[in-house]
Amino acid sequence: MSDISLMIHGGAGVVREPERFDSALRRIITRGAELLESGGEALDAVALCVQLLEDDPLFNAGLGSVLNAQGVAECDAAIMDGRDLSAGAVAGVGCVKNPILLARAIMEKSDHVFLIAPGAEEFARAQGICCVPARYFQTQERLAQLARVKEKSATALDHDAEETKKLGTVGAVARDQRGNLAAATSTGGMTNKSFGRVGDSAVLGAGVFADNASCAVSCTGVGEHFLRMSPARTVAFLIEDLAMDTQSATQEAQRRLEAKIQGVGGMIVIGKDGVCARAKNTPSLLSATAYNGAITIQLA
Amino acid sequence: MSDISLMIHGGAGVVREPERFDSALRRIITRGAELLESGGEALDAVALCVQLLEDDPLFNAGLGSVLNAQGVAECDAAIMDGRDLSAGAVAGVGCVKNPILLARAIMEKSDHVFLIAPGAEEFARAQGICCVPARYFQTQERLAQLARVKEKSATALDHDAEETKKLGTVGAVARDQRGNLAAATSTGGMTNKSFGRVGDSAVLGAGVFADNASCAVSCTGVGEHFLRMSPARTVAFLIEDLAMDTQSATQEAQRRLEAKIQGVGGMIVIGKDGVCARAKNTPSLLSATAYNGAITIQLA
Repeated sequence: MSDISLMIHGGAGVVREPERFDSALRRIITRGAELLESGGEALDAVALCVQLLEDDPLFNAGLGSVLNAQGVAECDAAIMDGRDLSAGAVAGVGCVKNPILLARAIMEKSDHVFLIAPGAEEFARAQGICCVPARYFQTQERLAQLARVKEKSATALDHDAEETKKLGTVGAVARDQRGNLAAATSTGGMTNKSFGRVGDSAVLGAGVFADNASCAVSCTGVGEHFLRMSPARTVAFLIEDLAMDTQSATQEAQRRLEAKIQGVGGMIVIGKDGVCARAKNTPSLLSATAYNGAITIQLA
Repeated sequence: MSDISLMIHGGAGVVREPERFDSALRRIITRGAELLESGGEALDAVALCVQLLEDDPLFNAGLGSVLNAQGVAECDAAIMDGRDLSAGAVAGVGCVKNPILLARAIMEKSDHVFLIAPGAEEFARAQGICCVPARYFQTQERLAQLARVKEKSATALDHDAEETKKLGTVGAVARDQRGNLAAATSTGGMTNKSFGRVGDSAVLGAGVFADNASCAVSCTGVGEHFLRMSPARTVAFLIEDLAMDTQSATQEAQRRLEAKIQGVGGMIVIGKDGVCARAKNTPSLLSATAYNGAITIQLA
């Protein structure tokens, strides 16, 4: 029986009061690690962790999603199974309580990989996935945040002292006792984003990727950068084709993103050997790691 | 003054009466080659060629888009500039005459890279991009095709004798006299697809990619396969990191897609050296190439 590896993240950026994220990250990674230690599958672990992150209003995904310029949430999410590269992705849904569960249903119960907007919501309802009214996401905090950002006429990611460079998003990567890898990412995007804007979280190869032959990756950052460079896929290439170790490949993918297009953000990675790595060029990347029987929380 | 290179494709699959595509491909590549030979930019050449392909009802993009299960067109498109990896992508638009022009406007005139569905249509209207009613796409041929496919309860790509394995989509890749690369892809997707389904055409790294450091790529095939493997990005990696020549990299990316997930489709590629390559595992890939002063049409 091999050991398990699990990492989760709650976004990169400039995080105010990072300590308020500590207990949530610890609670959620503990649940995921328990699932893996009791023989559960990597796919179930990443889905569970992202669902719990979505249900915590601290994080910019699910319940805590930021609001777009029209004052409504538009969520994106994707999940990928490293065993056979099966995947499900969803973008632009405003009525689904847990977008990661919809992404998984797309993977397992549709003929398609990527569904968007009203069509994805129609599929969610047909599958009996929990739908909520728009006001579920319109919390006092998010409405006030949108008003502040609108005053400055900016778009904003979720973690930023100035609220104009915030980088929310949540994600999870896992390796189970059988050595299978999986990855999942979910986000509400950027505060005051244009109606219909999609970042990298829903895009396989950009914000999420998993392949047992290389690694599992979940990214967070400025989606407009990550979309253009396929950084999640890059880590996998560097491991599989250039035989880099997990940590070097992660750093190199991050370095290329920055060198080539001044990309801003970070990523968490678990290699096929179970090694956990992260990289970022933002002041903070909120993450938690369960590896070798220990849990580590990183708030910077 | 270096020579120019230009390739366009009209989709892969099982093509009925391929000869009916010959004159359209020849007319369109001639227009693009003239633009490049007179000193025009790669980005303008791929945008022009894809726009002309969209306006020809023979091809599954723009006017010729196939219809989804609800009897309406939902178009996807993306464009990428190899100079700085700037890009624009759009998915799920049903009222835009030329989705490739919308993708380009997203690249050049928005803060975002990827817009979808009603939000993308709203942006199109605000930009003065030509919008059309749903019936513009509901041609007699496409309505009859949808009825035939619905009778068999299948989804269908556009080129197939049986109409259940059709692989339309159009695309263009170019290298101009300054050595700059660009790529563009546009599609109506699959006949009888679910409302909201998106394939690889709108996804950077999957159906389209361009980087002056490596190559320009446009793919066509089963979007559900191409989305999971980032094949356009794969060709670029093989050229840039493994120093493969353009033809070998193209064949290897296609081979991996097939070996790993039984992917079905094809791609056109122009390397940074101007060499033109294509690969496919379908019976046909409709393409035209302008290189070394000669135009070559391939209908198989």
